[in-house]
Amino acid sequence: MRNFEYYCPTRLVFGEGRIAKLPDLIPSGCRSLMIVFGGGSVRKNGVYEQVKAAIGNIPHTEFWGIEPNPCVETIRRAVEQGKRASVDFVLAVGGGSVIDATKLIVAALCTDMDAWEIVLSKKAEQTKPFGTVLTVPATGSEMNSGAVISRADTKEKFAFSSAHPVFSILDPKVTYSLSSHQVACGLADAFVHVIEQYLTLCGESRVMDRFAEGVLSTVIEIAPSLVKRHDDYDLMCDYMVSATAALNGMIAWGVTQDWATHMIGHEITALSGLTHGASLVIVLPAMMRVLREQKRQKLLQYAERVWNLHVGTEDERIDRAIELTEDFFCSLGLPTRLEDAGIGREIEDEVVRRFRDRSVSFGEGRNVDADCCRVIFDCCRSSRAKK
Amino acid sequence: MRNFEYYCPTRLVFGEGRIAKLPDLIPSGCRSLMIVFGGGSVRKNGVYEQVKAAIGNIPHTEFWGIEPNPCVETIRRAVEQGKRASVDFVLAVGGGSVIDATKLIVAALCTDMDAWEIVLSKKAEQTKPFGTVLTVPATGSEMNSGAVISRADTKEKFAFSSAHPVFSILDPKVTYSLSSHQVACGLADAFVHVIEQYLTLCGESRVMDRFAEGVLSTVIEIAPSLVKRHDDYDLMCDYMVSATAALNGMIAWGVTQDWATHMIGHEITALSGLTHGASLVIVLPAMMRVLREQKRQKLLQYAERVWNLHVGTEDERIDRAIELTEDFFCSLGLPTRLEDAGIGREIEDEVVRRFRDRSVSFGEGRNVDADCCRVIFDCCRSSRAKK
Repeated sequence: MRNFEYYCPTRLVFGEGRIAKLPDLIPSGCRSLMIVFGGGSVRKNGVYEQVKAAIGNIPHTEFWGIEPNPCVETIRRAVEQGKRASVDFVLAVGGGSVIDATKLIVAALCTDMDAWEIVLSKKAEQTKPFGTVLTVPATGSEMNSGAVISRADTKEKFAFSSAHPVFSILDPKVTYSLSSHQVACGLADAFVHVIEQYLTLCGESRVMDRFAEGVLSTVIEIAPSLVKRHDDYDLMCDYMVSATAALNGMIAWGVTQDWATHMIGHEITALSGLTHGASLVIVLPAMMRVLREQKRQKLLQYAERVWNLHVGTEDERIDRAIELTEDFFCSLGLPTRLEDAGIGREIEDEVVRRFRDRSVSFGEGRNVDADCCRVIFDCCRSSRAKK
Repeated sequence: MRNFEYYCPTRLVFGEGRIAKLPDLIPSGCRSLMIVFGGGSVRKNGVYEQVKAAIGNIPHTEFWGIEPNPCVETIRRAVEQGKRASVDFVLAVGGGSVIDATKLIVAALCTDMDAWEIVLSKKAEQTKPFGTVLTVPATGSEMNSGAVISRADTKEKFAFSSAHPVFSILDPKVTYSLSSHQVACGLADAFVHVIEQYLTLCGESRVMDRFAEGVLSTVIEIAPSLVKRHDDYDLMCDYMVSATAALNGMIAWGVTQDWATHMIGHEITALSGLTHGASLVIVLPAMMRVLREQKRQKLLQYAERVWNLHVGTEDERIDRAIELTEDFFCSLGLPTRLEDAGIGREIEDEVVRRFRDRSVSFGEGRNVDADCCRVIFDCCRSSRAKK
């Protein structure tokens, strides 16, 4: 097991009707609150009314319009508004994009630095405190300090580290109005987050392996019912808990991490606009195929414990586990090939070019570089229908 | 899934050599530190020297002599010493007893209330900040806000709620000098902590069930090697992580909890001095047997997922799972019957009398009262050798 530090001070407030607790959670000294929203779905699902009713007469301003894959251009406007209002607490009401945007807003509120410079600096020096009301289980951003921000004019997308939310409210009923595609992408995102922390080296921690396998097994178990109907409270609870636990650090104690799938996925999204979760399900099966020797032992454990594959040769079990993974994503209605998702060669070329220009290499072996990325693209290009 | 709040702000600093990080972890403004120790084992295993070397010239005072099952009488002396020194940060160096005692010390430092009154009030109003250097993985106290305190003159033992440690340092190498009995009791404690949060109702959370089963499976897997030798770094890592994860709230999100085994175990310890973990392994198998109908569905899940029991009737699988649980504790060298542990009828009678006097009832069904406790004692009285 590797040395590690774990610090996750977010207060998680989970369950039906918990938005009403906002007045107890927002610091009592708060004199100017800014509430950050996305595109307006919260007006339809009742969340907006619940939030407004809960905050009562706490002085506040609203910022609307954080887009999926939040852009620094939009965030700059929120920062201006927040500075004008001398905001001392920010409440993010939305999914991972709204929360990620808020993580940059609270950093930019404390400095004269441009927001994009903060992203490029990799870590915010100082932040205003903030809380969240989560509406889309997927990114885990509600209980970690990370954020991913896009820049529209250059089609770039980078991660940076900010602060943890002071609190996050998770009411499973809020998610009933999500579309099947949103739920599918959220499940895929949670699944791949776990894989990034699991499918690396064997034998680093029995407990972390079990935790990771536990979340994967749960996502696989609940997905078929969940993509059909989103109003099963118990299923939604497990979906929400899976997505949060997948990326709050709890399954990462002392284990080697990967994140190469995310690095490639981010570029695809930045260049094509494809939803984050949808980009990951294309890259992951190819990543497993290309790095099968490096990941052999863990793939075998994954095959056995997550997919219950006990018979056949080692290679047959690995083949089958990768196939079942890809089948699983397809069963969620998500294409697993670039061609099926409408991603053309020009995007592949640009991702490879960027990796080469930046001289980057990712993954637990630091060997997912531009060349390896090209091989991965070769492996997930052709339509699956042509198999 | 039940509504829940989760808040665990302790910074976990894990790994070899991490005690040297103390100067970065103790708040820089600390003007008077008190270090709380147990009986002196830290002088033999090098921890004392590491701590002293790390804190350098931070002004500090030492308090020695916290006993196993820490007594309020000892704690009062520590509080007096701390008040005289105007202590503003406390460092607990030891196992669960030292950490639990420190949780009461930091509360009593903030008030004129007697320490036992704080325990009886169930929750400390205010505390000084504190950190820990853990030397015995068992109670999970290093990452939660709970503590259990004894009173020597009345032989009472009660839990109360204090604050979380600001940080906890877990260096697996520190545990190499533990005795086999200490490791056995620590493993048993961690195991039963998980069971208290798991063996109640079925279907409340798939993720929490998987997490709980993951810790149980790990403890079962590592125990045989671990009780024989304590210098296997990787095994010790998993033992430490299991004990911490067993009681830091991570496996308790939204699930019904039990804790009846602990309530009976605490009384046995208070009256007989039996080590905490050793008391639990006597009560638990009997608890499973007596409440088998109430816990039937979860016992079946436990049998299947933790003990891999897939054949036989339901009752056969439950019988076997309980037997394997008791065998497991015996394999750690811990007696699982009152007679084998030298606990006489007079102690049984006193526990039952106390429960009756206090009109208490425990467990997820609130039905473990004085009468039920008597039935449980009947079930774990006779020596196992007589079976």
